[in-house]
Amino acid sequence: MVDESLMVQRMSGRKLSGLIAATYTPMTATGDLRLDVVPKMVEKLLHDGISGLYVCGSTGEGMSLTTPERQSVAAAFVEASAGRLPVIVQVGHNSLREAQALAAHAQEVGANAISATCPSYFKVSNTQTLVQCMKELASAAPETPFYYYHIPMLTGSNIEMPEFLTQADDAIPTLVGLKYTDTKLFEFQRCLELANRQFDVVWGCDEMLLGATATGARAAIGSTYNIAAKLYRQMTLALTSGQLDAARKWQSQSIEMISTIGRYPFHPAMKAVLAMQGLEVGSCRLPLESLSPTQTQALRNDLQAIGFFDWCRAPAESGRA
Amino acid sequence: MVDESLMVQRMSGRKLSGLIAATYTPMTATGDLRLDVVPKMVEKLLHDGISGLYVCGSTGEGMSLTTPERQSVAAAFVEASAGRLPVIVQVGHNSLREAQALAAHAQEVGANAISATCPSYFKVSNTQTLVQCMKELASAAPETPFYYYHIPMLTGSNIEMPEFLTQADDAIPTLVGLKYTDTKLFEFQRCLELANRQFDVVWGCDEMLLGATATGARAAIGSTYNIAAKLYRQMTLALTSGQLDAARKWQSQSIEMISTIGRYPFHPAMKAVLAMQGLEVGSCRLPLESLSPTQTQALRNDLQAIGFFDWCRAPAESGRA
Amino acid sequence: MVDESLMVQRMSGRKLSGLIAATYTPMTATGDLRLDVVPKMVEKLLHDGISGLYVCGSTGEGMSLTTPERQSVAAAFVEASAGRLPVIVQVGHNSLREAQALAAHAQEVGANAISATCPSYFKVSNTQTLVQCMKELASAAPETPFYYYHIPMLTGSNIEMPEFLTQADDAIPTLVGLKYTDTKLFEFQRCLELANRQFDVVWGCDEMLLGATATGARAAIGSTYNIAAKLYRQMTLALTSGQLDAARKWQSQSIEMISTIGRYPFHPAMKAVLAMQGLEVGSCRLPLESLSPTQTQALRNDLQAIGFFDWCRAPAESGRA
Amino acid sequence: MVDESLMVQRMSGRKLSGLIAATYTPMTATGDLRLDVVPKMVEKLLHDGISGLYVCGSTGEGMSLTTPERQSVAAAFVEASAGRLPVIVQVGHNSLREAQALAAHAQEVGANAISATCPSYFKVSNTQTLVQCMKELASAAPETPFYYYHIPMLTGSNIEMPEFLTQADDAIPTLVGLKYTDTKLFEFQRCLELANRQFDVVWGCDEMLLGATATGARAAIGSTYNIAAKLYRQMTLALTSGQLDAARKWQSQSIEMISTIGRYPFHPAMKAVLAMQGLEVGSCRLPLESLSPTQTQALRNDLQAIGFFDWCRAPAESGRA
Repeated sequence: MVDESLMVQRMSGRKLSGLIAATYTPMTATGDLRLDVVPKMVEKLLHDGISGLYVCGSTGEGMSLTTPERQSVAAAFVEASAGRLPVIVQVGHNSLREAQALAAHAQEVGANAISATCPSYFKVSNTQTLVQCMKELASAAPETPFYYYHIPMLTGSNIEMPEFLTQADDAIPTLVGLKYTDTKLFEFQRCLELANRQFDVVWGCDEMLLGATATGARAAIGSTYNIAAKLYRQMTLALTSGQLDAARKWQSQSIEMISTIGRYPFHPAMKAVLAMQGLEVGSCRLPLESLSPTQTQALRNDLQAIGFFDWCRAPAESGRA
Repeated sequence: MVDESLMVQRMSGRKLSGLIAATYTPMTATGDLRLDVVPKMVEKLLHDGISGLYVCGSTGEGMSLTTPERQSVAAAFVEASAGRLPVIVQVGHNSLREAQALAAHAQEVGANAISATCPSYFKVSNTQTLVQCMKELASAAPETPFYYYHIPMLTGSNIEMPEFLTQADDAIPTLVGLKYTDTKLFEFQRCLELANRQFDVVWGCDEMLLGATATGARAAIGSTYNIAAKLYRQMTLALTSGQLDAARKWQSQSIEMISTIGRYPFHPAMKAVLAMQGLEVGSCRLPLESLSPTQTQALRNDLQAIGFFDWCRAPAESGRA
Repeated sequence: MVDESLMVQRMSGRKLSGLIAATYTPMTATGDLRLDVVPKMVEKLLHDGISGLYVCGSTGEGMSLTTPERQSVAAAFVEASAGRLPVIVQVGHNSLREAQALAAHAQEVGANAISATCPSYFKVSNTQTLVQCMKELASAAPETPFYYYHIPMLTGSNIEMPEFLTQADDAIPTLVGLKYTDTKLFEFQRCLELANRQFDVVWGCDEMLLGATATGARAAIGSTYNIAAKLYRQMTLALTSGQLDAARKWQSQSIEMISTIGRYPFHPAMKAVLAMQGLEVGSCRLPLESLSPTQTQALRNDLQAIGFFDWCRAPAESGRA
Repeated sequence: MVDESLMVQRMSGRKLSGLIAATYTPMTATGDLRLDVVPKMVEKLLHDGISGLYVCGSTGEGMSLTTPERQSVAAAFVEASAGRLPVIVQVGHNSLREAQALAAHAQEVGANAISATCPSYFKVSNTQTLVQCMKELASAAPETPFYYYHIPMLTGSNIEMPEFLTQADDAIPTLVGLKYTDTKLFEFQRCLELANRQFDVVWGCDEMLLGATATGARAAIGSTYNIAAKLYRQMTLALTSGQLDAARKWQSQSIEMISTIGRYPFHPAMKAVLAMQGLEVGSCRLPLESLSPTQTQALRNDLQAIGFFDWCRAPAESGRA
């Protein structure tokens, strides 16, 4: 039975806002979980002004974890957050039955929302099948809001999102919106404005956040908000106060940062940057590559050269302004 | 020998600005050229407040014309414009020697700039080869500014543009910038800001113009500026005067218009819309499809239903405001 | 510790041969497992002259099952086969740790070999990473021969297989070969002939088996061997006895059959054909689509029209000839 | 008006057979045409036992030549061949009107057949449009047999060929068949056997010729027949005389040769090999890359190491056996 409070929430339009960190999953150097780091990570992100957590997504290597591991990571983040910021748990899986187990568990431990990619070994190529898949999955967490995770670059599913939302609206009672990870701002905008703006469509491409915010984005989920939330908040502030030039300068700095990190295997390099900021989260699992000590040192030098360690510091003070 | 005034122009940074129409090539119903329509088209576009013409690009079916046809179309637009707005002639061709002939002719008839895609039958997959191709091509018009036309969806060439601009800067004396037709705002922004903002990087995706303008775009080349320039000018005006909500509303209307037209074969439908606006430009050539009379009527009804004919009317009065 | 008998086997070159059925996983109409059907399926396949089973691959919807389900399916096939034909268990998973659990279990229950795709949510794009992934996976079943499952259409990994085999040879002691599911006969042939023909490279594209056998294939793994083994055996027999025209006629019939079934969602339609042959294996799980009763009847009519039910009957008698 | 003798030819099924060289276009080191080399090239190919010429295709860089250049190359090959072997002229072009001019010219100078890719800047994505394009093109040479050139890797058009042949059969009176350049042997076989085997479907993938011949190919068009015709003839001979092992050995040698040449930019390297065999055909044009002298020497060494210069020599003597 669907909780009526949910329907109320959905209709009243309480939506995500601000910067939501796609969290990294803390590991040892050999890829074992280190859940003891989760509380420290949550405190750092709260201190940085982050307004939500997206757990076990692409950034969190959800697909590379076992089902019990994913469940323990989800539980750890919910517990450490202690209601201070919403936790969205990504439960997508090639096996929809595994996905259902993850969804049910997320609801059980108190996640504020679930989110899921479609299966991607077998490609989902028509809208109706996508709706059926997500309906089956979401039904396992009938009291938890659901965000479809659109990331065609990784899933190979190029379904048009306005069409999906329209068809899924009736079929999936818990559907509240999307994590939209593509570069088509026009499709994003159509989703935002669909059906009297009822859907919560969250932007997923950090290096285009300025354009997305101008276009109407209210919330963004991304990996680089873990390391540079201050920068993005200042950018958004500049835009909404009419200072376009300043906003562009912040986005430009974000692009330079991302491009610098992108010279290395991206997520392993991001984990190294977190370590440089004092949060040891270990390395990534295969199939992601590892960073050698030499690469880590080169990355540090590259980031120093663009002044990253200066402008990412002291986020709370100016960031919360 | 390279004209020194060009180098002066390039260094002094006189750049394109505003809305540049990617012109349709007027044809009969059977696809023969109708150059007699060109002057009327140019007057309409001037009246609409258009600030430049991009001739024989994808919109103008340049690739579907013969070399002599492309030359006569280019000459017709340059003549009809009579110096009142810059004319950029697209000269890309699978055969770089045909492209050179087109480039030399464009310079001879007085085009303000040339632009070109890379060859696309054989895919260009490394930056150095792209530079060599464009150097060979541009050398045939040594006194005419050159814009590389980046449209990976059609050429299959996914070369990174910041890298291309950096390498091509020394090799191609006439290079001034890009027509950037992709959705990666972060790459566009990097190109804009490269090397002390010396490159003229023009946005090519109409339905994302709001995000692009917020990110720094000063000029845009597109097909829908032929039919709804007023809308886009009002959008830009709203953005620069800090009225984000109004700007989003205009972009939203543009997206609805493009999505409506896109239910039909796009360019043939656009030509039909021009006819509805009083400018008979005929149909498209194969391999583009034709619109049946039934489809044309349905398109008219669809556009009427969204109010298109109301808000696209009287562009000069309010648009120039 | 690696079993020495394995190394002996590998060096002595005992290889797979003949037609290996990529088995369907028996389910109810609602997608629950029906392991009670497995023994009957195995007897049918033995009766058809099948020389091996490939379990939980793409055909068997391995990726759509939970880990415990995959383990129970693998165990059921090993048990039902009772050593009468080799059972290869596909253990690929986005999570290499889940894959390791599947591999270890397969070895424990006595599978003759394991096989695995690479992770495919994160795309594996360089050879060295693929080797590392498969080394990690295969190490969990150190006494069980390992076949890498190359199916770039589904995994998105286009690593060149001759290069992979060369690099993996030293790194993965249990590596014996490939399931090669692509259409590049030249790459297949290079793999076959590599390093003094030491690798067991098994063909995976049923509708090209004639060309592959002419090129050197000795074994093939495929889904249509479940329903028409007789046809393929006659084709191979014709080829090896120099009757090229007859061989082409059999392949032609196979293509017509596959093309007919391919007008419907392929794997669900194949399950329907098995039911028509007396083996009830239910429907497929999402994200694969379901066949409606109307579609099932139309499929039966289509197959009747091409004479399928005549020439697929009585496989044992003439087939074993 | 369509010549009736053509229809007769088409119905009576006189088809291409044997090895057809996709000819290289002789050029200087700077990419200018050297038509004086054409007669010598034709004599070499006749001496090698080649049974047809495919001019200005991908191998001949047809798309990189101007229209007048393509016409002069076509005329030179027709003249030099002097009726001793059929000459097929490839006339595909992004502009169908340019293609028509090329087709009309080919007919005028006496080409035995024309062939054409579809336009590829604008992608042709439905069968009906492809039929319309090829009908328009072929109508310009109404007395010349027409082969559609299917090469989806370069055109981006993935139309299914059996469907195209079926629909085009009525629409295009001069259609006789296909140059099929893809690796899907099953699609090739369906085309071969369609409509009572009336179409002349020619194989276009040299490194899979063994599999294709086993499957039914009677003729093949390719670039490596220019340098190693003997090898391929021996392979075909071995296959048809039931010596499968010998046939595989020849195909294996071909694969090693192609793989060796493929370590360099392929077509420029092939031109270098022709020079090593005594036929100076210069370099390729951009966008194809050039071979440096160092690369050319390395290529020679690589080919020497695999014995290429031994087994490609004296083609006429043993080859004609």
